[in-house]
Amino acid sequence: MADRFIKMHGLGNDFVVIDARDAPVEMTRARARAIADRHTGIGCDQLVLLEPSSVADLKMRIFNADGGEVEACGNATRCVATLLGASAQIETAGGMLSVSRDDKQAHVAMGEPRFAWEQIPLAMPMATERMPVGWSGLEAPDAVNVGNPHIVFFVDNADAVDLGLIGPEIEVDPLFPQRVNVNIASVDRDNRLKLRVWERGAGLTQACGTGACATAVAAIRRKLVQSPVTVALPGGDLVIAWAPGEPIRMTGPATRVFDGETDWSRFG
Amino acid sequence: MADRFIKMHGLGNDFVVIDARDAPVEMTRARARAIADRHTGIGCDQLVLLEPSSVADLKMRIFNADGGEVEACGNATRCVATLLGASAQIETAGGMLSVSRDDKQAHVAMGEPRFAWEQIPLAMPMATERMPVGWSGLEAPDAVNVGNPHIVFFVDNADAVDLGLIGPEIEVDPLFPQRVNVNIASVDRDNRLKLRVWERGAGLTQACGTGACATAVAAIRRKLVQSPVTVALPGGDLVIAWAPGEPIRMTGPATRVFDGETDWSRFG
Repeated sequence: MADRFIKMHGLGNDFVVIDARDAPVEMTRARARAIADRHTGIGCDQLVLLEPSSVADLKMRIFNADGGEVEACGNATRCVATLLGASAQIETAGGMLSVSRDDKQAHVAMGEPRFAWEQIPLAMPMATERMPVGWSGLEAPDAVNVGNPHIVFFVDNADAVDLGLIGPEIEVDPLFPQRVNVNIASVDRDNRLKLRVWERGAGLTQACGTGACATAVAAIRRKLVQSPVTVALPGGDLVIAWAPGEPIRMTGPATRVFDGETDWSRFG
Repeated sequence: MADRFIKMHGLGNDFVVIDARDAPVEMTRARARAIADRHTGIGCDQLVLLEPSSVADLKMRIFNADGGEVEACGNATRCVATLLGASAQIETAGGMLSVSRDDKQAHVAMGEPRFAWEQIPLAMPMATERMPVGWSGLEAPDAVNVGNPHIVFFVDNADAVDLGLIGPEIEVDPLFPQRVNVNIASVDRDNRLKLRVWERGAGLTQACGTGACATAVAAIRRKLVQSPVTVALPGGDLVIAWAPGEPIRMTGPATRVFDGETDWSRFG
């Protein structure tokens, strides 16, 4: 067994990280799915492949458990940050990210949020703050792209929404040609948001880093809270700082659980 | 990271195997649960701890994902068999097991089945073949202990039973003071059984090795099939051989998925 990987998690969102910077690893949809299988594979929410980059210190590719490649994952980015030196530039399909770490936490500059309808993207021109749409009593959401598309509903009590029921319906609504991540948030107390997320392609999760970024940005833009904002997810807390015209800054934990050795050829 | 483990599966029933024969590993309920967690731990259905034995080649202890220790697991036994030499004797809380392996498969002698009501155990004296009890249309089961307690229902179509609904009800019925594993089987074709299992403490699983043994024994005793019997589980096939007065012999696959390194102190 000559192929190595690292198993990590950020707030319970877990990853198989493969460092393929020196030796390329071919990643097909079928192989990613086999690795992610929790019973017959290694098991993970997402697989993270680190590759050489010509424009940054490294390139990060992210595959969902269904084998599909996605643009961005905040929790995965914090995990990778803790594996690198004090600071690094990471190329992703969702944009360029700056990361750093200290002894306790990882810090990620996620790039600037995008608010234009065609940047979300939406299927038609529309205001992205207090959008004139609704689903089953959920009304007037904000849309934000933070490397991937998000829609954010502010409600009185985020726990009272049946997100397992309404999330999959909104995710595939034709308004979102690339589908969408669905965030349900309430202001818990001053500068603290409570958040639950239905993740595109993954369902209800313990913690969605990009969802925390999108929700904090939308709440700051609506002046519901002031930066920096603590976002309380089921898996734990993230701190998000942002001001208009600046990149989003996310701070939070990342944990290395174990190192592993296998043969990638076992996974198809 | 100095502590090593092996991740394996038998028909999709997956295990973290810790070889503690040379260096003891303390396993508390909380630590077993933390290791088994699929997001923040290593992730497994059961944790298998190999320890020295004074009466056999080694002792095998099995912990469920909820941290509770159980007596027997056929799939885990096949996995351990593939890690050992050509043959070995294993001491377990459910009895002494003989194992061997060839290049493709693992073979386990599971000991003799027990049929007496107090050996299952049941709460009261009762015939264990075509028992005079029933639940929601499931009638006249057989009870067999193969290291752990099983009840077996023979039906026309095992797929037609809502085992996720009825399994948890039967598991905790007061008739079974140590709870029970619930097997729903149908004769697929000559000497081939189709089997679905609700596992005590684990729920619906891809494959239950002891369930396959208990079901094959009950079917042979009822003369529904002749030994050796192929038992088709959702995760794949096992071959079970048995004759009255002899140990049950189980043959099937076991797969080493990866080797890992961590620190047990991370898991409490």
